[in-house]
Formats: sequence, C-alpha cells, structure tokens
Amino acid sequence: MKSLPEKTIERLSVYRRTLLNCLSRGKEYIYSHELAQLHNITAVQVRRDLMLIGYSTTLKKGYDLKALVDLIGEILDSPTGLNVAVVGIGNLGRAITAYFKGKRSRLQIVAAFDTDPEKINRVISGVKCYSMNDLQQIIDQKNISIGILTVPPDHASKVAEALVVGGIEGILNYTSVPVNVSSDIVLENYDMTTSLEKVAYYVKQQF
Amino acid sequence: MKSLPEKTIERLSVYRRTLLNCLSRGKEYIYSHELAQLHNITAVQVRRDLMLIGYSTTLKKGYDLKALVDLIGEILDSPTGLNVAVVGIGNLGRAITAYFKGKRSRLQIVAAFDTDPEKINRVISGVKCYSMNDLQQIIDQKNISIGILTVPPDHASKVAEALVVGGIEGILNYTSVPVNVSSDIVLENYDMTTSLEKVAYYVKQQF
Repeated sequence: MKSLPEKTIERLSVYRRTLLNCLSRGKEYIYSHELAQLHNITAVQVRRDLMLIGYSTTLKKGYDLKALVDLIGEILDSPTGLNVAVVGIGNLGRAITAYFKGKRSRLQIVAAFDTDPEKINRVISGVKCYSMNDLQQIIDQKNISIGILTVPPDHASKVAEALVVGGIEGILNYTSVPVNVSSDIVLENYDMTTSLEKVAYYVKQQF
Repeated sequence: MKSLPEKTIERLSVYRRTLLNCLSRGKEYIYSHELAQLHNITAVQVRRDLMLIGYSTTLKKGYDLKALVDLIGEILDSPTGLNVAVVGIGNLGRAITAYFKGKRSRLQIVAAFDTDPEKINRVISGVKCYSMNDLQQIIDQKNISIGILTVPPDHASKVAEALVVGGIEGILNYTSVPVNVSSDIVLENYDMTTSLEKVAYYVKQQF
C-alpha cells in the first residue's frame, strides 16, 4: 500500500482516540458529521480520509465504531508491534512515559535511558531505566525501533547519532534543537515553542 | 493584516528558532536554500513564506539574519507581550515551564496553577504556583491571556471551562482528551500519541 498523506495519518490517529473514547462509553455507531464536529473539521474531510483507507458504509446508523477502530489499527499499527525507548528520563521523559503507558498494545515503551546513576536500574513511570552505555545492547535485545528524544539540547545531536548507529529506524525529537539524520530514518521534530507561538499569534490577531 | 496560514505561522516560528541559533554562532547572512535544507523543505517554500510577510532581499549574500528575526518577531509577537499560565504542574507542566523559561521575551509563563497543597505557593521551575481557587484573581492581576493545559485527563474539560470563564483567550491543550470551547477561543490540541503513531506508521512502511 502506498504511504498515506501525513495529515491523513495524523487525523486517523486522532479519530481512533475519539472512537475508543466513544466505545468505552458504550456507543456503537457514529456518523461522519458527528466525528467531524468533535474535531472541528468538515464531514467531507472525514469521509475523504476514510475513503483513502477503503472504509465506507451503507448503514443508516453511521459507521460501525468497532470495525472502524480495527481498520485504523490495521493501517497505523505494525502487525507484530513496535518497541519504543525514551532517551533522557527527566520531567519530560517521565511525563511521556506515564502518558503513553498502556495506551496502545502494538506500540510500547519498553526501555528508558539516562546517564544519571541515580536513575539507572530503577523503574521510572513503569519502565526500566538503563545506562546510555548499554544503548546498543538493549536496542538489540529488546528489538527497539523507535527512540523518543528527551535529553538536554546540548546532547540531542550526539544521542540521535548513537540511536541511528544502534539501529533505530524512527526518532521523535522533543528537544529544542532540530537533529539531522540520514533520510532513511523517520524523523519527527516537535517544538513546544511553535505550538505556543501559534496560539499567541491567533490570540494577537483577535485584538 | 490578514491572518497568515497556520502552516506558515508554524514554519516562521521554526525559522526563527533556527535563525536565532545561527546568530548565536556568529553568522550574519543566510541563503533561502540553506534555511530550506535545515528544515528538509524546498527553497521555494522558504521564499514563499517570507514573501507572505513582505520580506525579500537583493543582497547577493542572502538574507540579513538580524533583520529577518526582527521581522518574524513583528509578525508573531504581540508588541506588548502576552502572559501565559501553566495549569497543572506535574511532570509535563514542569518540563514545559523549564523548557520555555527565558526563550521569548514577549511570551512568558508568569504563573502556574495546581490543586496540590504541597505545590501551592512554591516556586517550581522558576514560576510561582497558585491554588486553582485563585485562578480568576491571578488571571486578572497578571493579565494572563493564554493557558497551557497539563492537568490529568479527567479534569481537562472542567479546567478549560474555568480558564474561559476567567477570561483566557487561547488554550494549548496537552491532555489526552480534546476539549471543546467556544469558537472565539484560540485552541490548539496536541496529542503525543499522534506524533508517535505517525513515526511508527512511516517506520512500518519501510519494512
């Protein structure tokens, strides 16, 4: 299957979160316009995204929630699951680990890394913390393919490089510096400053 | 001035971060293709974004870094500055506060809020923490216009509502539940799960 557009992937992830939430409240069906309204987008957009993954329904009562969750899972999740490591277990690393714990069965944080002897060999937010010196070994042992980068900015480049050398295939970078890795590594840089500046810009526009 | 597209705003914020970084390393000029390369986009995209904010140059040596940083500041920043509060000072709230401290002179985190008596009246990551009971009063006193939501998911909706009643104009929601506020409030929902699922999807595509 051809890669789907980045924005569609993002929306599928967000739809699934909402659908799981609806399921847990006992709902069984949902209309495209309901799903659209919950995300401040148009029903046309929702239908277009679901058409891209081959989902449509002739049911008068809307989409079957369970079937749709399963289908999105087939698209987004790896059949055998992917293992994730959090590198740098300060406040942000802890928050992310705790946040993600138990959320997805096929995408799991299985290890944390740090250089602080106080943290090494401890279980933090439910995940064991290893020494950065054992990075390569643990990546192999636990078959880790994604690294979440939450180290101090000065260490970001060096650690990203070590992850790539260690065999990681994807990096989610939360540090305040962009990292450069070869183009065969999946890289997502997220900068909080940008989210906050965006909100500030639109607030300013309303004055 | 008409509002700029969301994606342009995001890129301007990211460009500024890079430009400030270049300036701090003593660089004075930069070409559009250099700036493009640093962000894995095309030089055409960079030039289009800068054209939208009325910046062009006839200099052979590229854009004047300092002038460009100042211009982006005029676009993104409020002339008088905007004040921000972090609501919920757990691991994520602390991480965000520490991360953002001193980054922007015209966008500052001036208060934190929590319900935990152990945290109230303490200075955490450089910012004073107040009781949620004093939300309205402190928003007024400190002229806060943006709230960063880092409370537990069960409290997200209720706290978002309290922020709006308190007079907040923009919310950056980091909780795992989407919040619904009236359309005159600027709202940005950020979900880590989506970023991680996106990386996982593209890693899976490479198999």
